[in-house]
Amino acid sequence: MAGNSFGKVFAVTTFGESHGKAIGAIIDGVPPHLALDEKDIQKDLDRRRPGQSGISTPRDERDKVEILSGVLKGVATGTPVALLIRNEDVDSSAYEEIKHLYRPGHADYTYTAKYGIRDWRGSGRASGRETAARVAAGAVAKKILQKDGIRLTGYTLEIAGVRAEKKDFSRIEENIVRSPDVAKVSQMVDRIEEARKRGDSVGGIVEVVVEGCGPGLGEPVFDKLDALLAHAVMSVGAVKAFEIGAGINAARMSGSCFNDPFFIEGGRVRTRTNNTGGILGGISTGESIVVRAAIRPPASIETPQTTVSTDGREETVEVHGRHDPCIVPRVIPVIEAMMAITLADCVLMKKMYD
Amino acid sequence: MAGNSFGKVFAVTTFGESHGKAIGAIIDGVPPHLALDEKDIQKDLDRRRPGQSGISTPRDERDKVEILSGVLKGVATGTPVALLIRNEDVDSSAYEEIKHLYRPGHADYTYTAKYGIRDWRGSGRASGRETAARVAAGAVAKKILQKDGIRLTGYTLEIAGVRAEKKDFSRIEENIVRSPDVAKVSQMVDRIEEARKRGDSVGGIVEVVVEGCGPGLGEPVFDKLDALLAHAVMSVGAVKAFEIGAGINAARMSGSCFNDPFFIEGGRVRTRTNNTGGILGGISTGESIVVRAAIRPPASIETPQTTVSTDGREETVEVHGRHDPCIVPRVIPVIEAMMAITLADCVLMKKMYD
Amino acid sequence: MAGNSFGKVFAVTTFGESHGKAIGAIIDGVPPHLALDEKDIQKDLDRRRPGQSGISTPRDERDKVEILSGVLKGVATGTPVALLIRNEDVDSSAYEEIKHLYRPGHADYTYTAKYGIRDWRGSGRASGRETAARVAAGAVAKKILQKDGIRLTGYTLEIAGVRAEKKDFSRIEENIVRSPDVAKVSQMVDRIEEARKRGDSVGGIVEVVVEGCGPGLGEPVFDKLDALLAHAVMSVGAVKAFEIGAGINAARMSGSCFNDPFFIEGGRVRTRTNNTGGILGGISTGESIVVRAAIRPPASIETPQTTVSTDGREETVEVHGRHDPCIVPRVIPVIEAMMAITLADCVLMKKMYD
Amino acid sequence: MAGNSFGKVFAVTTFGESHGKAIGAIIDGVPPHLALDEKDIQKDLDRRRPGQSGISTPRDERDKVEILSGVLKGVATGTPVALLIRNEDVDSSAYEEIKHLYRPGHADYTYTAKYGIRDWRGSGRASGRETAARVAAGAVAKKILQKDGIRLTGYTLEIAGVRAEKKDFSRIEENIVRSPDVAKVSQMVDRIEEARKRGDSVGGIVEVVVEGCGPGLGEPVFDKLDALLAHAVMSVGAVKAFEIGAGINAARMSGSCFNDPFFIEGGRVRTRTNNTGGILGGISTGESIVVRAAIRPPASIETPQTTVSTDGREETVEVHGRHDPCIVPRVIPVIEAMMAITLADCVLMKKMYD
Repeated sequence: MAGNSFGKVFAVTTFGESHGKAIGAIIDGVPPHLALDEKDIQKDLDRRRPGQSGISTPRDERDKVEILSGVLKGVATGTPVALLIRNEDVDSSAYEEIKHLYRPGHADYTYTAKYGIRDWRGSGRASGRETAARVAAGAVAKKILQKDGIRLTGYTLEIAGVRAEKKDFSRIEENIVRSPDVAKVSQMVDRIEEARKRGDSVGGIVEVVVEGCGPGLGEPVFDKLDALLAHAVMSVGAVKAFEIGAGINAARMSGSCFNDPFFIEGGRVRTRTNNTGGILGGISTGESIVVRAAIRPPASIETPQTTVSTDGREETVEVHGRHDPCIVPRVIPVIEAMMAITLADCVLMKKMYD
Repeated sequence: MAGNSFGKVFAVTTFGESHGKAIGAIIDGVPPHLALDEKDIQKDLDRRRPGQSGISTPRDERDKVEILSGVLKGVATGTPVALLIRNEDVDSSAYEEIKHLYRPGHADYTYTAKYGIRDWRGSGRASGRETAARVAAGAVAKKILQKDGIRLTGYTLEIAGVRAEKKDFSRIEENIVRSPDVAKVSQMVDRIEEARKRGDSVGGIVEVVVEGCGPGLGEPVFDKLDALLAHAVMSVGAVKAFEIGAGINAARMSGSCFNDPFFIEGGRVRTRTNNTGGILGGISTGESIVVRAAIRPPASIETPQTTVSTDGREETVEVHGRHDPCIVPRVIPVIEAMMAITLADCVLMKKMYD
Repeated sequence: MAGNSFGKVFAVTTFGESHGKAIGAIIDGVPPHLALDEKDIQKDLDRRRPGQSGISTPRDERDKVEILSGVLKGVATGTPVALLIRNEDVDSSAYEEIKHLYRPGHADYTYTAKYGIRDWRGSGRASGRETAARVAAGAVAKKILQKDGIRLTGYTLEIAGVRAEKKDFSRIEENIVRSPDVAKVSQMVDRIEEARKRGDSVGGIVEVVVEGCGPGLGEPVFDKLDALLAHAVMSVGAVKAFEIGAGINAARMSGSCFNDPFFIEGGRVRTRTNNTGGILGGISTGESIVVRAAIRPPASIETPQTTVSTDGREETVEVHGRHDPCIVPRVIPVIEAMMAITLADCVLMKKMYD
Repeated sequence: MAGNSFGKVFAVTTFGESHGKAIGAIIDGVPPHLALDEKDIQKDLDRRRPGQSGISTPRDERDKVEILSGVLKGVATGTPVALLIRNEDVDSSAYEEIKHLYRPGHADYTYTAKYGIRDWRGSGRASGRETAARVAAGAVAKKILQKDGIRLTGYTLEIAGVRAEKKDFSRIEENIVRSPDVAKVSQMVDRIEEARKRGDSVGGIVEVVVEGCGPGLGEPVFDKLDALLAHAVMSVGAVKAFEIGAGINAARMSGSCFNDPFFIEGGRVRTRTNNTGGILGGISTGESIVVRAAIRPPASIETPQTTVSTDGREETVEVHGRHDPCIVPRVIPVIEAMMAITLADCVLMKKMYD
């Protein structure tokens, strides 16, 4: 109930603070016989890892994951899979100096308002570091989806207003901004570098496409698949908007244009367009599920900002340290992970109807 | 798990099909001593009710709610509050004719894919009628929020591209499109009427502002208040996008511009701007919570559409009957209700920290 | 969270007070295609109904159940099944007189301590009447179990110290105390009649045997099948002890005697004895599940008792009205229902592993 | 849903196999500001630890607990508390030899039936070792209860038929069988030693008394406090019966004798007797909560037993290795832990009503 668990059948609980001893995840509900080893998980952790390139934070988190339980000789046994990532290369000194200030755009004030106490070291649990545990759990979810032929592809649709026009999925992982349109890479990188130079930060838009997902996933009414995905994606700290299919544009379309006509292809019911984004009445249609998330610019900037101290005085704060001027490329595996966890949960639930 | 319950402490379970005997809601977790009577609930049901004006469906649902339990002499006792609304004025004949067809934009196909069976009468549980039970439960939630000085104001921000510029909350309920900008009412109505005449439908954008909500609501990580609100709002059938605060625009702002500077006012920590929409790190700041939802155009239109039959033939369908060409004004109380349920849940959870 | 829901996949929520308008149950998770009509449910309600014979309360509750949703032409559609039972023949006058007193053995004091308010009419939600909603939901659960060949048989093992020695299942429903040993019926009835005459009450022991349940039901660790059954059975108001298999006698057995030896019969793994009661490590073995519940004597007795008033004075109370001097026979369908709900939940969960 | 989590507000998730890398627990919902360090937890772990005396298993589990998160300078911050216990002194060779056999009284067969795979090393997750994680979480729960003046005292009521008559709480922890009646210690020890010599095992009865718990804990209907405690206690592997208050004897008492008369003492409502065991209508009365659990004899015995192999042949098995002939004294902290977790959950939930 305190918000650190997600999912019903594939149920993930995470723990850990940025500068504590470790972070990790326990997954209850991993199907027995699923092949699983640390390499499967490490791959996605490396995609999220800082220090991948000059444009992201130089903190050298190796994020080495250890499977503590639930796996025997590379195969899941049906008992909880515990994943542990020790925190290394931790230095809280930069935080010590500003721990009496509420940083704008950060959760310092709200955590204090809620708990009356906060772990100020590296933002504690409110740190983006917490998402490494999600990525680890998401990698296990992806293994379940894989068996059903479901794959997720996440990429940068936009950074600081520069938008990918072409969508070539084969090029995403080869450039540091994860753009599917390589022609836009240098412009995106430039905007990030400009922001860094002036002690500022920029945001963008992530798009994730889910392919291979058959019809019938999701529950009606409150747990519509799109509602679950919105919950999952909006739970990632930096996300300020969630769209499915035509998204916000749906508000300006007519019904005759928005409705996706059904037709038959290869014996399967399909739709000619996909404005609905692969979900009708909260249940998957079998078409691709297309989701977008708007990512705000990171809160930690070197530019001086006016703020207040924990004892109520107005002050100025400069946030130094190792901070990304843009987290869009690194947040992609996190959003993929949250969507994979949600979908794996639905896939397992669906088995009860078969 | 099957998706018909929402909330943890203030837990709502709904039931009922459009053309079945009744719809309703059970609320577990209503605080004892809350004053509660049927009139409190009826008021919001009347706001959602069809047939309020010429621009909405002529179906005359009186939606009379009956409190079956949990209340003694106008006061809640702490036991479940059961709310019942009998279905009246039901005529399934228009549905009988097209029950062998999957209507585009409707859940006919996906329900069949999931359950292997569907209640075709008036769209069954996939009907918008289901939301009357949410509105009833939401009215109870609003009573809890009221005691804490929290109020929600929902209105039409946009219909068919016509956008309200002025936001005068006092004018919302006096015009049939629930626009806070009365100067735009006739334009909005015209767009709806035009759509109706050509057998088509239009969408729009709803905005809801929550005022009076102190800091500290919401849980970190997976149950961030914005994630819970996104889940709640996206679970309303017609919603295709969810935004909080600056929303999608956050993707194009710099950090120095997006971050809301803290200051002190009357001894309280406040922010000068509210790009974050009243939530930081998933926890309320005490500023207004501002949410927007994009509403797609209704799926039921008279214009002929190509589709497929339940036995796999391609056909043409015309959906006749009593259907709104625009549901934006009527969906406002539904979105308010879902947000109120979410917030009441958080308010009750917060008591555990006090 | 407030305690009025039970089950995960087959999730039952009940509502209603003894002298309120109605009681009922919503079941989310009823599998689509399950044949279901009101007669299926009425049969078990009639077994629980008071006024079946001279030894039980003369209150004439017809307990007529109405299915409000989730069923189309006698078949479940996968949406919530709402069951409604209107309260009739209600007279609160006997309660009015003693509403300022905490009746010994009743929940008057504890409800007041918890909620600061209580519905004193017919004991409100703390009344045994609440269990009619459980029986209704249990009847639906039994339909699911039936399809898997699982059947429950509940009977009176003991009343007021008189114990059934013979267990002839075919005779249970033909005698008013539901004894499987007809030779003991008149003795049991005599004990009950003696208690009634002196304004007192008596208890007993119920045993339920579950047959046809294959191996593999239940979850390990916290949700062991025996733990879930204990939760289910102990949630019935009058139950003071729960045993499985050898039960309390297991404490006095040696391991060599308690351990049930495995053998093979018809290709199936079986055990020669069943001290474990059909469950090992929390998971069903495929042998019969054997459960016993100790039922305390009813709290409502005419004998004067010392007690205190709601304003703290010591007083004497006599509880008149229509009360059973022994509820053992009537509690059997309630315990069966709770076990059936638990088992149906496990049966549906198991599908995820198949 | 897969059974490895317990509790709603104080929510415990455990993981780990007997011979895996580690076991542990994540607790979500630990109240901020709770003083917490590893020593608090270690104390109870040491009470559960094997090798405490000649009568228990010589396996030298040091069970050193490490707090990984949720605590800053000895104080809980409100985020999840992760507890890790590495497995040491592990030797799976004795299990290797019999891994093709289903040991009678063990979960080998049922885990295989459920999952199609099992971790045979040291019984895997079905090992009693799993309970160390519960004891660690229970120690945190006890800290919460302490603040409210609630304390649990567990002891051996009976071993192999030898029953403690005197209940001197001050003597429990000073004797190796945890008997509150020191006059019975040598007899109890003798029975255990006799069992060990003949390659057999014995059971017993544990009683736990909860003092200082005010009125109003627990929820009505399905989550009655006694039902939750039954769930908690029966989820401990070796428990075959659960009693509250008069327990099974309630079945043979008359109502006039069973009902606990109310009276006033020091302005507080109290009862003169406590047959109900401190709970009425599922809600605590403020009197001591008295619970008993029947513990079966351990399944691992050296006496040859008939059984079947995983490929369906009938065989004989002798279970060698380091096994307790009686686990009653060691299971006491486990039962206390499960009850403490349950009560802490209720204590936190109750805050919502205050």
